Amino acid sequence: VFAIDDERMVNPACSTETGRPCRHPLTNDMENQRLLAHEHRVKGAFDAIVPVLKRIAAMQHEPDFIERAQRIALEQLGFELPAQLLADAWIEDLDMRALYGECVLRTLRLMAEQSELNNSHQGKDEAIAFFLDSGYHAVDISPCSDGRLKGLVRYILRLPDGAVRSRKAYAGAMFDVDANVKRWVETELMRFREGRPVTADAGTRYLKVVVYHWSSSDPTHEGCAAHCSNVTLAAEAGLKRLTEFRQAIENSFCCGASVDILLIGVDTDTDAIKVHVPDANGDISLYRYVDNIELYRASVNDDASGARLKVYQAIQSASSSTGWAEGQGEPHEGMRRLIATLLINNLSQIEYVCSNWGGRYADIGHAERFISVGDGFEEFQLRNLAYFAHLHTVEEGAPDMDVGIKIFTKLNVNRGLPAPVAIHFRYDSRVPGCRERTVERCRRVKAAIEGRYQELAQKGLIVCGLTVQDKRPGSPIELIAASEK
Amino acid sequence: VFAIDDERMVNPACSTETGRPCRHPLTNDMENQRLLAHEHRVKGAFDAIVPVLKRIAAMQHEPDFIERAQRIALEQLGFELPAQLLADAWIEDLDMRALYGECVLRTLRLMAEQSELNNSHQGKDEAIAFFLDSGYHAVDISPCSDGRLKGLVRYILRLPDGAVRSRKAYAGAMFDVDANVKRWVETELMRFREGRPVTADAGTRYLKVVVYHWSSSDPTHEGCAAHCSNVTLAAEAGLKRLTEFRQAIENSFCCGASVDILLIGVDTDTDAIKVHVPDANGDISLYRYVDNIELYRASVNDDASGARLKVYQAIQSASSSTGWAEGQGEPHEGMRRLIATLLINNLSQIEYVCSNWGGRYADIGHAERFISVGDGFEEFQLRNLAYFAHLHTVEEGAPDMDVGIKIFTKLNVNRGLPAPVAIHFRYDSRVPGCRERTVERCRRVKAAIEGRYQELAQKGLIVCGLTVQDKRPGSPIELIAASEK
Ligand SMILES: [Zn+2]
Ligand SMILES: [Zn+2]
Ligand SMILES: [Zn+2]
Ligand SMILES: [Zn+2]
Repeated sequence: VFAIDDERMVNPACSTETGRPCRHPLTNDMENQRLLAHEHRVKGAFDAIVPVLKRIAAMQHEPDFIERAQRIALEQLGFELPAQLLADAWIEDLDMRALYGECVLRTLRLMAEQSELNNSHQGKDEAIAFFLDSGYHAVDISPCSDGRLKGLVRYILRLPDGAVRSRKAYAGAMFDVDANVKRWVETELMRFREGRPVTADAGTRYLKVVVYHWSSSDPTHEGCAAHCSNVTLAAEAGLKRLTEFRQAIENSFCCGASVDILLIGVDTDTDAIKVHVPDANGDISLYRYVDNIELYRASVNDDASGARLKVYQAIQSASSSTGWAEGQGEPHEGMRRLIATLLINNLSQIEYVCSNWGGRYADIGHAERFISVGDGFEEFQLRNLAYFAHLHTVEEGAPDMDVGIKIFTKLNVNRGLPAPVAIHFRYDSRVPGCRERTVERCRRVKAAIEGRYQELAQKGLIVCGLTVQDKRPGSPIELIAASEK
Repeated sequence: VFAIDDERMVNPACSTETGRPCRHPLTNDMENQRLLAHEHRVKGAFDAIVPVLKRIAAMQHEPDFIERAQRIALEQLGFELPAQLLADAWIEDLDMRALYGECVLRTLRLMAEQSELNNSHQGKDEAIAFFLDSGYHAVDISPCSDGRLKGLVRYILRLPDGAVRSRKAYAGAMFDVDANVKRWVETELMRFREGRPVTADAGTRYLKVVVYHWSSSDPTHEGCAAHCSNVTLAAEAGLKRLTEFRQAIENSFCCGASVDILLIGVDTDTDAIKVHVPDANGDISLYRYVDNIELYRASVNDDASGARLKVYQAIQSASSSTGWAEGQGEPHEGMRRLIATLLINNLSQIEYVCSNWGGRYADIGHAERFISVGDGFEEFQLRNLAYFAHLHTVEEGAPDMDVGIKIFTKLNVNRGLPAPVAIHFRYDSRVPGCRERTVERCRRVKAAIEGRYQELAQKGLIVCGLTVQDKRPGSPIELIAASEK
């Protein structure tokens, strides 16, 4: 046990022997500071809930209880507590489960509103140009729904807001091929019919990315639950799904329809990525990749242009691997440029973990604050903030939901706190009746969750919040009463 | 009561005073005979089940029971009974519920196979040309899922197999606008990307049709259950959904994207249609229509060209209606041609009901043989054969499913027979893994049905059959074992 603890203390990225703090030449320091402030603010808001509720619980039989409790809540949490819950405290003791659930869901909405305000919405054009530079008119990422990947786009890969066409998460990254074909069709029509983002004759491509994950410190326990913490299984399954998707497009549509595919792994302890470099045919091998933590180590003491050169060399060297890893030549230029960008972006994130957590997160396991069900909140892209189950019905999404409930049984239920479930769906305000149908869906999914986990629900150990949001970027989150018609 | 019975005896189409059998000049006699033979054969097969099972039940304690039962079944029903059920008869009495359910589901598969063999598959090209003649590259029909509309395409409207892009049925014809937008996108991409069925610059249109229904003999009881047998509500709701769909397309896509819409009513007693004639802007009024049974009466004694002229005059006269029914001029020429074709086709069906059932079906109410769940069988297009619930999950499709179970509680369960539920989904063999996922969906929906109607399921009063089928026309129906992995 001591041996393992010792090993955990070693910074996996930097050789700490030198004693001086690391500083990788390609790190975006400003962005790292901005992201750290964001992480502190959001997680701090959630972490304030339990201490505040403890204080309030302790004073529940004192005079002026309601006024004092509300003052504390407003000061510490930023909102007032549900008046009815406080007013009922004289009957039985305060319903702490309901109060906790409400607080998490209110914090979530408050944080989302603030994120929205703080987000310097880059121009949509700039975001699209980001991938168009590498020849991609659409990039579609399916990570695992594991909460430790929740910061994937904004932290781990450092991609601009709005650049990714879709980032629906699935347990084990096992995305829905049929739904993805439909999304591809929509993207294609936009290109053919409206010339958006570029016309069909521009020769750009559609990129589908799958992101699997593992834990370098505790690989057999803290890896991907959906693949029994077996990283090889996780990567294999992701690659299989990618290949199936490409095959589906090629088989279903004529005129040389195809897509590019890319497989990325994330070590959730360090946020370092492993990019599987496709060959000239676009084919991927589990054994042919660039491991970015090695690249970090190899280039941390270089100057910027030296480090940048090493990135390209690493891709080239992966492409010329032999044996099991051998492929048919280098990927096309756009793909090479994209991989280089991803690797360089991720160097900043490795440094972020390095400088703030000694290279390895303290919470290498699950520490999510809520379960996000449905379409997920664009506003939150923070590691371990939420377990995300992308689903339209519990009937189909039950396996994802079960994993989430299992995680929260350990995190919350076992100590008497409810699992906060934020059911969130987006609607298209251009489609008449869509909002009403989406609200209905929220209520239907809530009922199905309470039906599936009946025992927990009856004990108040599941608290659901219902919200909808227009699909247009920057739209407000609208709270839905569970019963209102 | 007598008065109503008397009224029911009057042939609503023909003035029977003359005594001579009617013969409308535009009737396709050959087709009427072919369709009658088909109806007799299929319904006869289902109707043979109960008498055969009664005979078999009576002999269950006799020697040679199994051999004799199988011989009778094979002769009368066309298949052998499940051997295990017969073999177990000595333990307790024969499980007639299970046997009945199995027989319905086997008959269904047998009939489907035979339909497939007998169907003189017209060329796909011919079917597409049918609507292209009126300037439509795709026609998409949503009828109510009521079993009495199950013969809509092949009998009531006499449309060629394969001409209709989609005919998913929904309770009360309340089709899913969002799913329909996706289907429109797919159709558009085919046109833009592959020039199928014609290129995008050909100026053709997409037509969305909603079909509602009522019962002229018992309007307040035997109308559309989803709209409380209120025909005005049914028509209004259909028109609202159509308008929402058109709006969704116009709002979501630029460059003048739009669709044509058409509202049709069916009197399920006579199969006569009412076509709501759009105006020059494509707008529809509930009060502006051609009632085809009037047209039949007015033209039954004319010659063919005289009758044909009256059809066009009826459309013209509807277009020039005033008052509540007033519109902005006539619809475009393609729409006029299409409406004329539908009216003329339906004259044959009115005659079909006239000559075979005195103008009005004996079973004006529900008399379905099974509940069809999922994608439905293309092979069956027969009035009152099946109640059809188009759904992907019971969670979403529960209202449709509930109506079906209610109907079958009256038809079957109340006399001790189970509701046979045929769960059928189609898969795309070009998409890797799609068949496996579709099989999974079958099993998931079965489990959800048995969960929702637990009491019935436990008593053996719901019997589910599971089948899948490739999407390509003419593909065989594949039986799925409920448990096999
Ligand atoms: Zn470092
Ligand atoms: Zn995972
Ligand atoms: Zn007649
Ligand atoms: Zn109906």
